Amino acid sequence: MAVVEVSIVPIGVPGTSLSTHVAKVLKVLKESSLQYELTAMGTIVSGDLDEILPVLKRMHESCFGPEVTRVLTQIRIDDRRDRKGTPEQKIRSVMDKLTDR
Amino acid sequence: MAVVEVSIVPIGVPGTSLSTHVAKVLKVLKESSLQYELTAMGTIVSGDLDEILPVLKRMHESCFGPEVTRVLTQIRIDDRRDRKGTPEQKIRSVMDKLTDR
Amino acid sequence: MAVVEVSIVPIGVPGTSLSTHVAKVLKVLKESSLQYELTAMGTIVSGDLDEILPVLKRMHESCFGPEVTRVLTQIRIDDRRDRKGTPEQKIRSVMDKLTDR
Amino acid sequence: MAVVEVSIVPIGVPGTSLSTHVAKVLKVLKESSLQYELTAMGTIVSGDLDEILPVLKRMHESCFGPEVTRVLTQIRIDDRRDRKGTPEQKIRSVMDKLTDR
Repeated sequence: MAVVEVSIVPIGVPGTSLSTHVAKVLKVLKESSLQYELTAMGTIVSGDLDEILPVLKRMHESCFGPEVTRVLTQIRIDDRRDRKGTPEQKIRSVMDKLTDR
Repeated sequence: MAVVEVSIVPIGVPGTSLSTHVAKVLKVLKESSLQYELTAMGTIVSGDLDEILPVLKRMHESCFGPEVTRVLTQIRIDDRRDRKGTPEQKIRSVMDKLTDR
Repeated sequence: MAVVEVSIVPIGVPGTSLSTHVAKVLKVLKESSLQYELTAMGTIVSGDLDEILPVLKRMHESCFGPEVTRVLTQIRIDDRRDRKGTPEQKIRSVMDKLTDR
Repeated sequence: MAVVEVSIVPIGVPGTSLSTHVAKVLKVLKESSLQYELTAMGTIVSGDLDEILPVLKRMHESCFGPEVTRVLTQIRIDDRRDRKGTPEQKIRSVMDKLTDR
């Protein structure tokens, strides 16, 4: 199971707010059946990598438009095959050890 | 105000679990006065960049030890000076637009 | 045309050297017809994104093995559709402006 | 010795070309005594992390200006303390193994 973080930034659009563009891109993810969570620095998607990557590609494509001709996309994949690790389990595993100390 | 994501990975340690190392590094952050949130792909810290960077440096240093001699650290900074943008506001701004659609 | 940087790191392998693993993964890229360049922090691939992404997926897969069950892969995409920008042109464009100053 | 990749992107500036901004930021690095190399996806700096980080901070600051009030900066650190590894050695180490195959 893979946990993947994606961040998509359009270049050359006026104004410092990117939220309209982020929302447009997230619409593609929302219409998929993938589990995701929004963070302040990107979106975390979890599931089968073979299902996730095509959706990320569509998200990237959806960012382009009449006024968007350059897009920077960053994808970070944490792919663990020795055991199933959901995003929640990853966080809990750290939190448990943090509390011990 | 800056929103910063940090991810610190020790190289060459046995076993696929990194949570002990992540917890050790987070202890440094916990002892600082900075606001932070743990995600499945890193830790998001917010505040004044001049206060955040020295803490990130100490977190990076704390990952080294007798059996850790190589560390990969990634820092992503979103620094916005036209207005104060907390991590919560960044997420809400996107969510509001996502619901409209 | 897209310029893409990829970095693939196996987790839980003994020793601090990753070059054997990086070479194994690069073999997949070498056998493709894609243009690439090795840097000290990753590999830069350029071309059509539809051709690049499946190769990156195969590179990621090739990193797994009997002793590698967790892999961290990072992909950064700079996709520009207003004009063709090769990696060399991107660098020259900056260098020209740097010399002017 | 650390090998560090930095990428600095201004948000909200008109036009898809970022090279003027990249050149402005690199001027700060050029005036330091640090070793660096420009790639198509960022700049690779090597040396002592304690010397590198303050320069990266100044580079980040230098990107702000009257028309730049939001800056995204990404820093990737590969810090190895078991032996000295220059960027050139990192690349050669992989190339040697790639040729063997």
